[in-house]
Amino acid sequence: MSKALERRAKLREALIEAAERAIAAKGLGGLRTRDLADEIGIANGGVYNLVDDLDELILRVGSRTLARLDASLSLAEISGPATPREMLVRIAVAYCDFASDNLELWRALFEHRMQPGKEVPDWAISEQMELFGHIYRPLAALFPKRDPQQLGITARSLFSAVHGMVALGLEQKLIAVPIKALRSEIARLVQAMIDGLLARKD
Amino acid sequence: MSKALERRAKLREALIEAAERAIAAKGLGGLRTRDLADEIGIANGGVYNLVDDLDELILRVGSRTLARLDASLSLAEISGPATPREMLVRIAVAYCDFASDNLELWRALFEHRMQPGKEVPDWAISEQMELFGHIYRPLAALFPKRDPQQLGITARSLFSAVHGMVALGLEQKLIAVPIKALRSEIARLVQAMIDGLLARKD
Repeated sequence: MSKALERRAKLREALIEAAERAIAAKGLGGLRTRDLADEIGIANGGVYNLVDDLDELILRVGSRTLARLDASLSLAEISGPATPREMLVRIAVAYCDFASDNLELWRALFEHRMQPGKEVPDWAISEQMELFGHIYRPLAALFPKRDPQQLGITARSLFSAVHGMVALGLEQKLIAVPIKALRSEIARLVQAMIDGLLARKD
Repeated sequence: MSKALERRAKLREALIEAAERAIAAKGLGGLRTRDLADEIGIANGGVYNLVDDLDELILRVGSRTLARLDASLSLAEISGPATPREMLVRIAVAYCDFASDNLELWRALFEHRMQPGKEVPDWAISEQMELFGHIYRPLAALFPKRDPQQLGITARSLFSAVHGMVALGLEQKLIAVPIKALRSEIARLVQAMIDGLLARKD
């Protein structure tokens, strides 16, 4: 790699890390490219030599958040033997913990919307889809007769339901719940959903 | 009421309705007090003679949205006899339909955050809490031995889970689902959760 390319790669990395710190501290709304440029010592316009636009910068930070979420869920998975049902509960609780520990970065994953007319790039979509594997694998073990498409729909529903509990549970308004109570309530509802789905057999 | 007070009340109503139309068309991010002032024919600063601040204006619009949601859920309830379990499914599907039909106004209920240091006023909190009655009543019939606090927690969990499915299901990114499929998936998961909770008896 040429010196110039190497320097650009380092600056790009520094920019993404600065954006990550800014979002972690103040949320998506607190992201100012001018501040980031100051922080890494480049001119304000220089940001757009390093990333295409603000959408790309936010998606690159999201990519790092998703990689850490993936690692957290994998760690939960290998933390001891578990039935598929126990594994789904463990993953749901690990998801809750990750969201609580990375509140603003996690919120940014869901609050970010692309500029009008722009699509989420394929690389970002596949990173998001890969995370469904954590839910998909134990579900496939629980429902061996379901085809991949049905399992995909159930994985998405289960994720959405847990996500809703975490999102509203961690909200700082009327429905804020102590994290310990939230974890056990999530475990209870995930168990109930799985038991109910198993009883239906459809 | 004096003429002046009457005029103020009318202008205030016009302002809230203009804000409602603006949010419905462009979301919370599209709300500009200058445009609203133009629309109802007052000076820009005059907006703050009618409401305390932007938070109050958004909460007043939210109040109208919640009243219409309440009416939609009540309509679903009286649309024919139902067991408590069927009633919970019906309410979840009606919630999904309302969100889909009032996408931006419904999103604004959840996206709005108060200015730092300001609390959501009590009148807004009680309006939000009243809506839980729609879930609480059939749950109380299904679980007659649970105390009000436990029922309240279950009502909140069930709501959060359904809300998550609706919110991610209606998102215009990777997990957008056709509304018909979303409705039947919500019905399926709500039934499973209730069956699972009934089987646990805790």
